[in-house]
Amino acid sequence: MPTNGFFEKSIFLSNWFSILLVTCVAVLLRYLLAKVDVAKYLWGHHHEGMADDLANNSKEGHCEEYFSALPEVEHVPYIGATITLPGGSRQFYEMANNRRSVRAFKPHPIPAFEVIENCILAAGCAPSGAHTEPWTFCVISNKDLKHRIRCIVEREEEINYAQRMSKQWRNDLRPLKTNHVKSYLTDAPYLILVLKQVYGFTKSGKRKQHYYNEISVSIAVGILLCALQAAGLSSLVTTPLNCGAALCRLLKRPINEKLLVLMPIGYPSDNCLIPNFKRKELKDIVFVK
Amino acid sequence: MPTNGFFEKSIFLSNWFSILLVTCVAVLLRYLLAKVDVAKYLWGHHHEGMADDLANNSKEGHCEEYFSALPEVEHVPYIGATITLPGGSRQFYEMANNRRSVRAFKPHPIPAFEVIENCILAAGCAPSGAHTEPWTFCVISNKDLKHRIRCIVEREEEINYAQRMSKQWRNDLRPLKTNHVKSYLTDAPYLILVLKQVYGFTKSGKRKQHYYNEISVSIAVGILLCALQAAGLSSLVTTPLNCGAALCRLLKRPINEKLLVLMPIGYPSDNCLIPNFKRKELKDIVFVK
Repeated sequence: MPTNGFFEKSIFLSNWFSILLVTCVAVLLRYLLAKVDVAKYLWGHHHEGMADDLANNSKEGHCEEYFSALPEVEHVPYIGATITLPGGSRQFYEMANNRRSVRAFKPHPIPAFEVIENCILAAGCAPSGAHTEPWTFCVISNKDLKHRIRCIVEREEEINYAQRMSKQWRNDLRPLKTNHVKSYLTDAPYLILVLKQVYGFTKSGKRKQHYYNEISVSIAVGILLCALQAAGLSSLVTTPLNCGAALCRLLKRPINEKLLVLMPIGYPSDNCLIPNFKRKELKDIVFVK
Repeated sequence: MPTNGFFEKSIFLSNWFSILLVTCVAVLLRYLLAKVDVAKYLWGHHHEGMADDLANNSKEGHCEEYFSALPEVEHVPYIGATITLPGGSRQFYEMANNRRSVRAFKPHPIPAFEVIENCILAAGCAPSGAHTEPWTFCVISNKDLKHRIRCIVEREEEINYAQRMSKQWRNDLRPLKTNHVKSYLTDAPYLILVLKQVYGFTKSGKRKQHYYNEISVSIAVGILLCALQAAGLSSLVTTPLNCGAALCRLLKRPINEKLLVLMPIGYPSDNCLIPNFKRKELKDIVFVK
């Protein structure tokens, strides 16, 4: 087909100028609408007299659409951290640096349940998007349930190692000497399944957005790890691929909860080995300006 | 059109049996191939004599495709947590519960830089997928740079509040009394921008997968928060929408790094107010079996 013929036959190419024009007008309109929105926001914002008035307005009761999923609370003075460590950041770093991921646990002694509770309470102090606190911590010590969890995880991990994980991934894991056999799932006295609530419910049963739920729950896991270390316990953060749905079904969790990580908790076995990794140095992880 | 005519004209409907048959055969083949893969993995696995032989093999040097991005290290004994808190989990919980998100900082006193370093070192002890340590902590104390960061964030936040955030989201945030004005970005003595490395590089310059980098870096943020609290410092975890690219460009960060959170660090201002939220109770976040 000669080029001219092609141009004449193509609706798009023969009308290129009109299409370009329409696109330009659309982009311009979108830009102007954005400016109008910002102006409206700023006007409304100044009109409301900033934060104080916002708070007063909120007490007047809004229509349902405007109702905040958070309670409307007063704001109170805060003077900052008052409960700290005597040794400060240095003592904390030494504690954090002493923590290692453990893959071999001994079934006894069984840590006091109160200790696990305190650690979870500490994790529950994590900040979260719009204070939605989108976490559930499932603590499993029942032997039969631990066995059933292990069955689910090992069955999927067999397929993960054989099929789902790339060759590169399997090789990246090789220095960790991991495989599909997860005896820690039945050896460790406790398993904690940390679930993220991808959405929640208001008191009236309406669906409630959980902003940044994965980041928020992961931050809580970081605090949980520190609390466990402070209590002298060891743990391992695992993300068993493709097991979430089956584990949530086993524990009869509601559909808004998804597995984020599965952690065995306890004391390392007597002959516990860990890879002799060095951590990155400060200069390799920090950038100062 | 009469139903029969419709059936005759539709290729899909008139050939439903053949299509069903082909689908069944495909599903069966896929299932059998999965079984073969698992059998191959298990055979290879037993053949290698489990972990010990795996380690020996790895010393022999593999072809590049099989090369692990992690160093091949020996495994050493580990007896578990030895540096703990005297008050254990209870003391840690009290410290964590004493932490609150702060949105008003005073410019002075400026915390010692060594303290910030220790806190980041602690965060760098977080576990990560295949020990990839996919984090970079950008510490900003330069006044001009803080001002430019604030300009970028406030410009985007104006549009966020006006346009990008849903009405529901803005209302969910109302009890926090936030708006697009972020004076803490210039008031706080330090800003820490926590970046996730979505991939990395091996020593030979090859691209290196960073598995679960968002979860890993968020866990590190959780540890960072605890370290700051231990040192008596306050902070705020923010996720400024749509600012990541501009901030990374400003700091000339490589393209494999993306902004996860931006945290002002320092001491609360003298008249600092916080919303009088209660945290969820233990029974509302824990599920025991």
